[in-house]
Amino acid sequence: MAQKPSIPKGTRDFTPAEMARRNYIFDTIRDVFHLFGFRQIETPAMENLCTLMGKYGEEGDKLLFKTLNSGDFLKGVDHSLIESGDCARLGARICEKGLRYDLTVPFARFVVMHRGELQFPFKRYQIQPVWRADRPQKGRYREFYQCDADVVGSDSLLNEVELLQLVDEVFRRLGVRITIKLNNRKILAGIAELAGAPDKIVDITVAIDKIDKIGLDKVKEELIERGLSSETVDIITPIITLSGSNAERLDSLASLLASSETGLKGIEELREVMTATEALGLNATLELDVSLARGLNYYTGTIIEVKARDVEIGSITGGGRYDNLTGVFGLPGVSGVGISFGADRIYDVLNTLDLYPAGIAEAVKVMFVNFGPAEAARSLAVIKQLRAAGISAEIYPDSAKMKKQMGRADTLAIPYVAIVGETELADGTISLKDMASGEQQRLTLSQLIDKLK
Amino acid sequence: MAQKPSIPKGTRDFTPAEMARRNYIFDTIRDVFHLFGFRQIETPAMENLCTLMGKYGEEGDKLLFKTLNSGDFLKGVDHSLIESGDCARLGARICEKGLRYDLTVPFARFVVMHRGELQFPFKRYQIQPVWRADRPQKGRYREFYQCDADVVGSDSLLNEVELLQLVDEVFRRLGVRITIKLNNRKILAGIAELAGAPDKIVDITVAIDKIDKIGLDKVKEELIERGLSSETVDIITPIITLSGSNAERLDSLASLLASSETGLKGIEELREVMTATEALGLNATLELDVSLARGLNYYTGTIIEVKARDVEIGSITGGGRYDNLTGVFGLPGVSGVGISFGADRIYDVLNTLDLYPAGIAEAVKVMFVNFGPAEAARSLAVIKQLRAAGISAEIYPDSAKMKKQMGRADTLAIPYVAIVGETELADGTISLKDMASGEQQRLTLSQLIDKLK
Repeated sequence: MAQKPSIPKGTRDFTPAEMARRNYIFDTIRDVFHLFGFRQIETPAMENLCTLMGKYGEEGDKLLFKTLNSGDFLKGVDHSLIESGDCARLGARICEKGLRYDLTVPFARFVVMHRGELQFPFKRYQIQPVWRADRPQKGRYREFYQCDADVVGSDSLLNEVELLQLVDEVFRRLGVRITIKLNNRKILAGIAELAGAPDKIVDITVAIDKIDKIGLDKVKEELIERGLSSETVDIITPIITLSGSNAERLDSLASLLASSETGLKGIEELREVMTATEALGLNATLELDVSLARGLNYYTGTIIEVKARDVEIGSITGGGRYDNLTGVFGLPGVSGVGISFGADRIYDVLNTLDLYPAGIAEAVKVMFVNFGPAEAARSLAVIKQLRAAGISAEIYPDSAKMKKQMGRADTLAIPYVAIVGETELADGTISLKDMASGEQQRLTLSQLIDKLK
Repeated sequence: MAQKPSIPKGTRDFTPAEMARRNYIFDTIRDVFHLFGFRQIETPAMENLCTLMGKYGEEGDKLLFKTLNSGDFLKGVDHSLIESGDCARLGARICEKGLRYDLTVPFARFVVMHRGELQFPFKRYQIQPVWRADRPQKGRYREFYQCDADVVGSDSLLNEVELLQLVDEVFRRLGVRITIKLNNRKILAGIAELAGAPDKIVDITVAIDKIDKIGLDKVKEELIERGLSSETVDIITPIITLSGSNAERLDSLASLLASSETGLKGIEELREVMTATEALGLNATLELDVSLARGLNYYTGTIIEVKARDVEIGSITGGGRYDNLTGVFGLPGVSGVGISFGADRIYDVLNTLDLYPAGIAEAVKVMFVNFGPAEAARSLAVIKQLRAAGISAEIYPDSAKMKKQMGRADTLAIPYVAIVGETELADGTISLKDMASGEQQRLTLSQLIDKLK
């Protein structure tokens, strides 16, 4: 029985035109990863649920896609559990596998399982889809790609400098103007110390983050609403209103946080990273932003966030330094720093700004018109020579009407159409039509190869 | 609490060295797909279960990985169904999605959903993992990649000729010597007609297939065991013992199947495909094999199977022509022909024969030794220039002991190590050590770039 097919909500098909654009982005990122000495790994789509559960908070656990056990999945399941209707517990009992939620936890698991074969510092990259049972909405999907690069097993801040260069190079190649915002978890800890409220890091940063939108007075109000005294707010105010160059901001910050050892350490780290990065030169704008607070439960040092300057969209890339990647799997002391490119948002940015190079969606360089068996046989022989020279080519498989055949070349934006008709068959030439200019030339095989190469 | 992590049975992690080898295979296949004008699509890992169920037979349904519905998956489920313990029916009720089992059904679904945007003939390729809850064993995984290329919307046999050229080119590039076996479903129908047993196609071909292993007499015995009369077996014997060149075999077959219109049509199709393919020239050996019977319930014309000549392993690539790709989704009349590369078996073949080019697993071209902040700063500036020239490079992130740093270069098979020490810092040179020869040279930056490019 015929059924009208559909795909699960929040997932997508990618047509050839979309794939060409996506591959352009992925290939650019991959090329730069290689240039910087990162090496690829892949992990299975399904992980054991015990690997995934409890790693993303209570909310995250709910967003995991679970895979039903094969065969008699109810076998041995306590009857009262089935009766209870407790879906969370029953789900965990009848599913032992789930789809990966991100690339970080699988990477941590990988490092632990393969630690004997790996050479530390280990620089890996991974480009694979992840799945989240989130409510689908514009720009948020249930299946999407992550592109992560991490260096683990090294505390050196040179790794941060390298990652910033890498980010800069990716977006330079893509033609996207960016601002890279930097912060350090230790500076945030220092601010909270200064405020006498070490547990209020998040509240403070959330409020500070709004200054551009709502202004200083409203931020102060919010800080008080969030439980800070007005004296504390006064102490923090100069930090919120830092201005000047990055060096000037770092200097002000150093005197404001002079009483916090942790804060000063954060400033020192950030200064080292920024100085080295600026010395090497950057296309991007580098900006110290004390309100930057991504991955607060995870990052312990540098925090990195990238914004597109010409499109209103959230962070398109982010990362940071962590102290303890693999402790949860029984291997303590593995520190590192990583960066994650948000492929789907970068795709949106490139679409908005129309930054794709011409010709990336080209199906083939040249299509041969099909006039019948004899002409087709000769065309195939020519096509074989073209392909041997690295030129992509095809023949229209049926000797359909000329209009239909040319229509294909038009629709697929194939730049050249080759014609081997009676005349060309007789003298061994090939007629080549440039579809953009409409110009047509009779060429020998070697002239054809030269022309198309 | 620390847990010792593992991955689901039948799945694999791929380390950088393995990824380099796998990417070499995938990139080779992809490059050839592009050269032939095939365009990539991707479909989601999860499909609606109703898209997948009933498409792979009863056994196939059992091998589908099902995704548990999010949230309260028992809501609205009849209590008696839960009580019944009928896992198949309950599974279908609490899971509406599942992981794709192959790339063909998702492709058919894709063609139906996107038919308005596609240009027919549509030449698509797709390289993605598929999942099957099969019992894992040597060479059989629960997650593995398929690499499919299909042309749909054209009955022309030129498509077969093109696909055979494509297969030949892929394995020529990989350096694998192959035999391409060809058959045609209509010839099999003709043989069954001749035997007066149209329903016994499968029995007949299964028996014929064993002739090399068990000899003619045993094959005859088996045919009789499978219910054919000895007269019928005598009629079939000349077909089983076909010999000579492909052209001679086709001629013999044509006289043997002279009474079957369908059989003759099959011979005619095969002759056309083989003649055109041989005229273009092939590295592979092309062989008519009337016992070839893959995809018998699916293919309606040409049947293709590829065997490696130097490794004992099953089919490493296969394909064929079908009449009705999308009928099950309500779009009749979409015919086509396709080929599927078995990436995991090809990987095994290349591993067995050690056919990988040197240097594919190279982490970077050159690693800079780290002697401390000043030397590292100069090194990073040099590295930036190298990368701008397309040369992959890295610095050891910590100023660790020389032995440890050199150990990394050794283990990762990095071909060159660059040294910027006190001397080089003073005169602006770089010392370069060739790790294979042990030779060391002092170079200027531009000499270094020339040397490494």
